[in-house]
This record gives sequence, C-alpha cells and structure tokens, in this order.
Amino acid sequence: MKLKRVLVFLALIMMLTYTMAFASEPTAAELKTSIDTAWTLVAGFLVFFMQAGFAMVETGFTRAKNASNIIMKNLMDFAIGSVIFYVIGFNIMFGSDVAGLFGWSGVIGIGNMDHLGLGISIEAFVIFQTVFAATAATIVSGAMAERTKFIAYVIYSAVISLFIYPIVGHWIWGGGWIAQLGFIDFAGSTVVHSVGGWSALMGAAIIGPRIGKYGKNGEVNAIPGHSITLGALGVFILWFGWFGFNPGSTLGATADVGRIAMTTNLAAAAAACVVMIITWFKYGKPDVSMTLNGALAGLVAITAGCAAVSMWGAIAIGIIAGFVIVYGVEFVDKVLKIDDPVGAIGVHGLCGATGTILVGLFAVDGGLLYGGGLKLLGVQAIGVLAVAAWTFATTFVLFKVLKATVGLRVDEEDEVKGLDIGEHATQAYADFMIKA
Amino acid sequence: MKLKRVLVFLALIMMLTYTMAFASEPTAAELKTSIDTAWTLVAGFLVFFMQAGFAMVETGFTRAKNASNIIMKNLMDFAIGSVIFYVIGFNIMFGSDVAGLFGWSGVIGIGNMDHLGLGISIEAFVIFQTVFAATAATIVSGAMAERTKFIAYVIYSAVISLFIYPIVGHWIWGGGWIAQLGFIDFAGSTVVHSVGGWSALMGAAIIGPRIGKYGKNGEVNAIPGHSITLGALGVFILWFGWFGFNPGSTLGATADVGRIAMTTNLAAAAAACVVMIITWFKYGKPDVSMTLNGALAGLVAITAGCAAVSMWGAIAIGIIAGFVIVYGVEFVDKVLKIDDPVGAIGVHGLCGATGTILVGLFAVDGGLLYGGGLKLLGVQAIGVLAVAAWTFATTFVLFKVLKATVGLRVDEEDEVKGLDIGEHATQAYADFMIKA
Amino acid sequence: MKLKRVLVFLALIMMLTYTMAFASEPTAAELKTSIDTAWTLVAGFLVFFMQAGFAMVETGFTRAKNASNIIMKNLMDFAIGSVIFYVIGFNIMFGSDVAGLFGWSGVIGIGNMDHLGLGISIEAFVIFQTVFAATAATIVSGAMAERTKFIAYVIYSAVISLFIYPIVGHWIWGGGWIAQLGFIDFAGSTVVHSVGGWSALMGAAIIGPRIGKYGKNGEVNAIPGHSITLGALGVFILWFGWFGFNPGSTLGATADVGRIAMTTNLAAAAAACVVMIITWFKYGKPDVSMTLNGALAGLVAITAGCAAVSMWGAIAIGIIAGFVIVYGVEFVDKVLKIDDPVGAIGVHGLCGATGTILVGLFAVDGGLLYGGGLKLLGVQAIGVLAVAAWTFATTFVLFKVLKATVGLRVDEEDEVKGLDIGEHATQAYADFMIKA
Repeated sequence: MKLKRVLVFLALIMMLTYTMAFASEPTAAELKTSIDTAWTLVAGFLVFFMQAGFAMVETGFTRAKNASNIIMKNLMDFAIGSVIFYVIGFNIMFGSDVAGLFGWSGVIGIGNMDHLGLGISIEAFVIFQTVFAATAATIVSGAMAERTKFIAYVIYSAVISLFIYPIVGHWIWGGGWIAQLGFIDFAGSTVVHSVGGWSALMGAAIIGPRIGKYGKNGEVNAIPGHSITLGALGVFILWFGWFGFNPGSTLGATADVGRIAMTTNLAAAAAACVVMIITWFKYGKPDVSMTLNGALAGLVAITAGCAAVSMWGAIAIGIIAGFVIVYGVEFVDKVLKIDDPVGAIGVHGLCGATGTILVGLFAVDGGLLYGGGLKLLGVQAIGVLAVAAWTFATTFVLFKVLKATVGLRVDEEDEVKGLDIGEHATQAYADFMIKA
Repeated sequence: MKLKRVLVFLALIMMLTYTMAFASEPTAAELKTSIDTAWTLVAGFLVFFMQAGFAMVETGFTRAKNASNIIMKNLMDFAIGSVIFYVIGFNIMFGSDVAGLFGWSGVIGIGNMDHLGLGISIEAFVIFQTVFAATAATIVSGAMAERTKFIAYVIYSAVISLFIYPIVGHWIWGGGWIAQLGFIDFAGSTVVHSVGGWSALMGAAIIGPRIGKYGKNGEVNAIPGHSITLGALGVFILWFGWFGFNPGSTLGATADVGRIAMTTNLAAAAAACVVMIITWFKYGKPDVSMTLNGALAGLVAITAGCAAVSMWGAIAIGIIAGFVIVYGVEFVDKVLKIDDPVGAIGVHGLCGATGTILVGLFAVDGGLLYGGGLKLLGVQAIGVLAVAAWTFATTFVLFKVLKATVGLRVDEEDEVKGLDIGEHATQAYADFMIKA
Repeated sequence: MKLKRVLVFLALIMMLTYTMAFASEPTAAELKTSIDTAWTLVAGFLVFFMQAGFAMVETGFTRAKNASNIIMKNLMDFAIGSVIFYVIGFNIMFGSDVAGLFGWSGVIGIGNMDHLGLGISIEAFVIFQTVFAATAATIVSGAMAERTKFIAYVIYSAVISLFIYPIVGHWIWGGGWIAQLGFIDFAGSTVVHSVGGWSALMGAAIIGPRIGKYGKNGEVNAIPGHSITLGALGVFILWFGWFGFNPGSTLGATADVGRIAMTTNLAAAAAACVVMIITWFKYGKPDVSMTLNGALAGLVAITAGCAAVSMWGAIAIGIIAGFVIVYGVEFVDKVLKIDDPVGAIGVHGLCGATGTILVGLFAVDGGLLYGGGLKLLGVQAIGVLAVAAWTFATTFVLFKVLKATVGLRVDEEDEVKGLDIGEHATQAYADFMIKA
C-alpha cells in the first residue's frame, strides 16, 4: 500500500508539472498557428515582390519613352487594388457564399470569416489574398502598354480588383459553383493568370496595335524593348516570388511545401529549356526574350497543378507550356494581329488555361494518365471556359465603356513622343541619349 | 482493488510515455524560440535588402555622373555600420541602462544581455538591430547626394552608427527615459527614420545646394534623376523590405504579425493613391517620382503605429502622410531652399514625425480619437521633439567639424564632372552616351 | 481511501485530456519538421534569388553589347542545371556512398534517401541543393564572359551540374572520403565556390583573353563594365541571398542560425571596409567595383567556417579575404594574364580556398589559434587541394574537348560586334545610343 501511495503521489506531481508546463508554454495548436502564419506571410511578401518583377518585365520589354508610365501603372494598380480589395473585393471573394456566385459578409472591410475555418490569422490571409489580387490587374498593363491612357488604366485596374477578379476568385477559391464541381486550381493558373490574360486579350484587341506595329502590306514589325537586363531581372524576381505564390498557397508549412517548390521550379526550368531549343531550331539562334517568357510560361502553367502532379508531370507541363508560349505568341501576333508588347496574353492567358487543363491529365489523384478517367479533365475544361467567358464578357463591356467615356487610347502625338511626356510630363532616362 | 492497481499502472505507463516523448522531442518553449528566431531572422534579411532599395532609389533619382559614388556610399555605410554597431553601438543602445540616457554592458562587442529577456537568440536580435542601424545613416546619403566628399560621408556615417542613432535607440527601445514615458514607436518612425531625416536636413542645410539648383533670381530648377526605373525598383524593394521592418519588429511570429503587415500595406497604398490624386490636380498630370515617394511616405508614417492602429487608422495615416510629403517636399525645396535631391527630409523626417504623433490620435488603446485623452499625444510629441533636438544638435556639431577639417563638399570642378570621376576615378555607364 | 480514488480518477481524467490533446494536435516532432522545412525552403528561395544577383553582377561588370548573352547564360545554367541535378546530379551527390567516391540510389530522379536521416522533407532538401548546384556553373560564366560560344556554355554548364560538382559535393557533403577526414566546409566555400572558381580559372586560361585586353607591349587594359548600378544591385542581391546560403545550411531553425547570420555579415562588412582602405591607399581613390567584389570575397571566405568561428574570427577572415581579393585579382590579371572580366577567379576560387583553410586557424573547436593543433588545418588543406586537383583535371579535359569539337570561342567579328548580335540576334538596349 505504501508503494501505491508513493506511485499515486508521483503521478500527481508529474501531472502538475505537465500542467504547469502547458500553462506557461504555448500549446501545439498555438505553435502550429504561429508557424503557418509566419509561412503564409513570408510567402505573401514574396508574392508582393512580384509587383517589382512585373514592373521590370513590362518596362524592360517596352520602349524607354514609356518606361515611367509603365512603372506608374504597376505601382498604382497595387496601391489602388490594395485599398479596394480590403474594402470590398475580399468580401466578394471570401464572404459567405450566395448561391455559388459571390460572397458577402454584411460589412465593408473584413467581416465575420469564421466559415473559412482558417488555421492562420485572418489578417495574414487577407494580405496574402491582396497580393494575389493585384497580380491580375498588373498582367493587363503589359499587353496594353505604350498606348493606353493612364486614367483608363486606373479605372479598369480598379474594376478588376473590385469585381471581375473577386467573382472568379469566389467561384473557385471561395466555395462557389466551380469549386463545388471539384475543380483544381491550387495557386491560380486560372483564378489569377487567365483572368489577367483574357482581360489583356480583350483590352489589346479593343485598343488596337501600337503605331508602326503592323504595316500596310501585312508585315509584322518587332518593336524591341529598351532593357533586356531589367526585363531579365524582372523574370528572376517573378520566379523568386513564385516560390511564395505556389508553396505559400498551402497557407501553412505543411508536409508538401517542399514538393510544391520542386514542381514549380522543374516546370519553369523545363519550359525555359524547351523554348531555347525551339527558338534555336526555328530562328537559327536561341532567342533571349522568348526564353525568358518561356520560364514564365512554365511557372504560370504549373500553378494550377503544383500540388497535384509528380515531378515528371511538372516537367511534362513545363515542356508543353514551352511549345504553347512560342506558337501562342506567334499566333496572337501574326495571325490574330493583336499587339501584345510583352507577350502577356500567351504567358498568362494561354499557358494559364493550358496548365489548368493539364491537371486533368497529370494529377496523380484523378488525372486521365493516372487512370482517373475523363471526369477531372471535363471539370477543368468547364472551369477554364467559364472563367474565360466571364472575363471576356465583363472586360468587353468595361473597355467599350471606357473607350466611349474617358477614352482608352492616348492621342497619336503622345504615343509617338512617348507616354512619359504625354501622360506624366517626365522622362525616365534624363541623362542618356535616346534614339529618336 | 484490482481495477485501481490496473489504473495506477496504466497512469504510470502513460506518464513514462509522455516523459520519454518529452525527453526526446523539443519542448514547446524550444519550438517557440525556433519559430520566433526564424521569423526575426527572415524579417532582418528583408530589412537588409532595403539597403539595395535605398541604393536604387538614391542613384535612380540623381544624375548618372554620380551613380557610382552613391552606390559606394550605400555599400559602405552598411559595411562600416555593421562592424561599428557590433563593436560599440549595440552596447550603447541595449546595454544595461545608465540613468535613462545610454546603455553599456561593460565589454566591447556583445556583453551580458540577460536584462533584455529575449525570446530569441541574442545574435538574431543583434543582426536584426544591425540592419536597422544602417538605415539611419543611409537616409542622410540621399539628401546630401551629388556634392558630398566621400571621406566626410564615411566619417559622419560612422558617427551616426556609433553614437547618434544608438543613443536615441536607447531612449526609446533600450528602456531609456522616453520609453519610460510610455512613448509608442513600434518599428522606428522616430528612432530610425526621423533620426535619418533630421540628420539629412542638417547636412543638406550646411553643405548647401547643388550647383544650378537655385538660380540668381530665386528660381528653383528641377534636376531630374537618371533612371526612374531603377528608382522605382528601389521603392518596390523598400516596400518589400518594410514587411520585415514592421511585422518583424514583433521579434516573433506573434498573433498580430498579419495585422501589422496589413496596416503597413494599407498606409503605403493609401499614401500613394493620395499623392497621385494631389499631383494630378496640382500639376495637371500624375507625377511619377512624387507618387513613388508617396508610397515611402506612407510606409515611414505607419512604422510607429503599425501595431497600435486599426486598418482604417492605417488608411488615415497614409492619407495624411500623402499630404505631408507633397507639401513638405515643396516647403523644403521652395521655401527653405534646402536642396534634397531625393526628398529624404520629407519622407523620413517629416513623415516620421507625423506618423509618430498620429499614434497619439489613432492608437486603438490610448489614442485621442479612441477616448484616450491627450496623454499619449503629449508623450508622442515630447519624444518627437526630444529626438529632433538631439539629432539637430549632434549633427550640427558633426557637420561643422567635418566642414572645418576634412571638408564636407567636393570642389566645383569635381561636382560638375561628377563625383564618379572626381572621387572614384570611374564611371557608372561606360558604354552609354551621356548628355553633357 | 476515498481521497485516493478521487486522485486516481483525477489523474486518469488529466491523462485522457492530454491524450486527446495530443491526438488532435501536431506532435512536437511534427512541429519541428514544419519549422525546419519552412526555414530551409525560405533559405533556398533566397539562394535561388542569387541567380538574379549573379546575372546582374556579370552583366553590369561587362559591356552592353554582351548583356543579353550573359543574361541568357545565367538563365539557362539554372534551368538546365535544375533538370539535370534532379534527374542525375542529386543522386551522385547524396545517393548511397560508393567507396567514398560517389553516391547512387539505383534510380533516375530521387530514390531512397533514408540514409540521409533528414529532419525535413526530402523535396525541401532537393530544392535547397538544386539552387546550390546551379551556383557553381554560374560562376564560370562570369570569368569566360564576352567571348564564349553559347553552345559551349550550355554543354559545359550541364557537365558541371551533372558530374563535376556532384562528385565534389559527395566527397564533402555526401559522406565521401573528404567528409570522413573531418573536413569543415559548412556552406560551401570549397564545394560550391572553389569548384566554380577553379573551373573559371581553367576556362578563362584555355579560351584566352578578350580582344584588346592585353596589348602587344605587355600593357594591361581595363575594359569597364556597362552598368555599375546593376552590378551593385547584383552584389546587394547576392549578400541578401547569402543569408539563405549560410544560415540555411543548418537545414533547420537551430540555435545557431542567428550566430551564422552574424558571422556572415561581419565577414562581408569587414572585407568591404578593408578593400576600400587598400584601394584608397593604392590608387589614391577608393575603388567602387573592387570594393563591391570585396564584399563578395568576404562572403565567399566566411562560407566554410560561418558556423565554426567566433564574431572576431569572422571579422579576421573578412579582413584577410579583403587582402586576397585585391592582390589576387591583380595577380591573375597582371601576372598570370588570365582575363577574368568580373573577378570570379579571385572571389570564388582564391577566397573560397582561403576561407576554407582559415577554418583550420579560426575554428573555435579544433582551430590552431584555439589550441587545436595542426590536424584540422591539415585536413582543410587536403580538402582544398583535392578539390582543386579534381576540378582542374576534369575541366581541362572538358574545355579542351569543347574547343576541339563545337568550339569554345566565338569568331572575331562576333566578339567585336558583341555576342548579343552574334549569338542571339538581339540587342539589350535598343533605345539607347551606345558607344562604338
């Protein structure tokens, strides 16, 4: 009996010790929240930095006389988008679902979001979503560069952040009708990139080509960018930021973040290799700016399936994206004769759609090549088509209204002199001698 | 009785299991230290990267002929500051408090810092503080650009890292007299930015304007920078780094890091929007470089209160900072006629002070608008004024001594040819044709 | 007896509570894996970003007419290296050890890696190693810039990632024969940097100097780079990325990550200070591009011992690296007359070797200056020499074979016109007037 008393006493002491330890120390759940919040925020910061990448890509691949204008557009779509998305957009995207079509939480700003069941702080989630939202609008900027009125840009970029993007976001990430079908778009090949890409296509088609782009006899003139180095820096920054975009979309330091980083990187690398080889055969010399776009094409394409495919699947998606970007850019440029100075339609629209559909083939769980049948492939196709239809319809109206009101395009004189002078009374490179 | 024996036996087995699990696994406290250390380090790395941001902003907004000199100054203030802050500065800032005025721990380098009660490793804290310290000196570089002797720069930047900054740092973050009043400067609107800004004001006033800046008949000439794209890249890098600066100042992945990231971003975004609008009305066209500075103004202003204000408070602070930067830069330039090539006095001095004082209005806990009365507002004003007085007094002596000894300003010929040739026998853009 | 029953009952309730808490919550081991995986990935992302740093350094310090070619090389060595290292290289480096010479796991891609005993996910480890592998090849690019055929670059960079680097990696990090001696190269002064540096030396020697670099009468001509600002941005990016390179090589948020960040930073800072002072005395003016290289020299040198030396040891290593880089670059350039446009041989080869050997002096545990005798110093020297011998031997064959087959060097006309036109039919700065 004595032994038993000692044992019971001992057990109680140990219990108390643990209890005290537990009381003074964070619980495992609290620690997990800390880790996941930190992970999501760091990833979000990387995605924010992609704004710098877009700015450098877009300015580097266009002319020096429009460089300040492009910078200003990239800065302002993020600034305006940040405020608007906080005040309204987030709510439309993630508020309580209304008939699978949009969300709302009853208040301006961030209302009750308990239905999201987040494992991280709501503010960490909002900032992560904010930096995503701004990306869609930025993409359009590139395709309509060197001729769009700044006022028109400010308005359409606000409308995209306020409404066009959040609705698609709700459909796919906010529990809306496409999500309910079982659609897979892990980090936004469709939600972010194809919305940007299709808006870019509509915008570029409606505004028309830059002066001198297409000749009277049907010839297509290349208009070289003013700084391959800045453009390349932008691509490296985007690739860097994509490590936040894709692995961060887990919203936590889960077991598969490393795998997602790998698939993301392999797809980008494979796409760049393929584009280098294609252009080498096609033009006799490996093309630098197309290969840079190739890396982006691979990144966009893997974004939907980065968590769903194997390493070999990622490489395959990258290879396919490489073909799509080379022939897609050519098709847009030479067949459709839509003037997209930086190739945004090909990179974000075509490769976003391609990558999303390829999830239906390569998803380890449910993909056609893994014996999953046609169901997932069909769902992926429906989602891609629905988002394209929505984006085309809304941006058609948007750009037509802008054209009829504030005007979409600068006048010819300003376009020739450059939008830096025409729209901002400045010049980007005051000390350098610029070719006329 | 048998059941009880079994139960006791079971309890003991479970205890042993847990004990073994605990023994082989890290404790919750150890895990928390890991998380918080990792968070603080990653944030510190982002703040380090702000050095690249400052370098690009300062070089982009000044002339090509001085680009190498500016790079060299930004590189060296960080290099010199890192060594000096480790050897002496950190100790003055965070050593055991002496009468509320300065700190000391009895040794060169890092002595006993147990009184700080850190939840992270001391080295993680030191590196985090090091990257902050270097920022103050860097700010001065911009305001005195294009005319300061390199030797004078090296000396004054060392003195700021050694002494001027750490003393203020001790007053506010090291447990000194201002901290004891209840002053709120979470991430350094006053500690870092206003020390830099007021030093910049004193330096720019004493060294005088660049040749050609102010005409004989009182006209003010704009001297455009040589690369808006690099300047803009710098602003994006700084914004990116600020996500380390503010959320990292928690020194851990606490529950409010997401909220701090949000307030930081909203203030920057709101300020940029406001500056765009103001300049659009004022000059007829939205001004690119002022809007870029607007984003920085919002970031500087929210730094003090990022953890203390609501989202709407952050937006309000951003809006106010937008007004302060536009009219403040104009006031410094056209009324005071102090030549600050990059607007550092307005961004860091005026917006740093403004943001700190606004905490007295917008702090959810203690702010005037939240029923907190005038106490916090008064404390904020005292802190701002005391730091301004200290900085003006010490830098006045510093710059006057430099002027009388090694000389503060390059000779006229070197200023006209450019400091790259005069101070470093180099040129930044050897292959490009530069305007005379 | 009643009390005892109550106590036992209480104990059981508490046990059950804990059991349920443990069951629903992550275990401490799972949390640690999460933290360490997140840390390693974030560090790896920073190391990835170093590719942008290398691209900017190499393009900034060479001529405008070759800027696109350098970008393309930096992009492609990473893209090709990523695929090859995943498919084969990783296996050679980290597969099951074969006689201390190389590794293999029996399959293409990533086989069974249980023998590594990783505390993080295997994919996180693979991506971390991938971004390291690409660095070695990139280093060579700089030394052979402005005259190497693109096809030759593609091939030799693939061979380095496939074979030359992984073998060394296995010897030192994969449990091979040098590791078994007790060699210390924590983050790769030897594994990464000296492999890159010695390959660069061999390549630059075999390909010969650029046209105009060395005159007929033995004079050495400086060929200035086209953008000090981009070069400096590259150095800042590399320094930033090094905070992933060194502290990340812990593969977890361990207790010493803060200390490693500190030693890394102090060595870089001290080296930059020393180079500024040396060049100031030597040339009368502080040299900008040499000082930028000085920071890199300090970073390379501390990489081996960053976890093994004290803060003062780090400063000492930085100071020594400062001397090595200035006199080393001069020796390579003026005595050996090997034309290395960006100083890669000095920075990565000489400082990598120096830093590795200095671990034998400065390691707190085993270093000569800490009473450790000559053993560690001897081991460090053996490792450095073995890696140099391996790298010289393999790259000698590699470059000779390339020279005899596809050709190593562009023809004279293309070199004069620039490799952008010759190799890629493009130009980096289409809008700017470039000096002939």
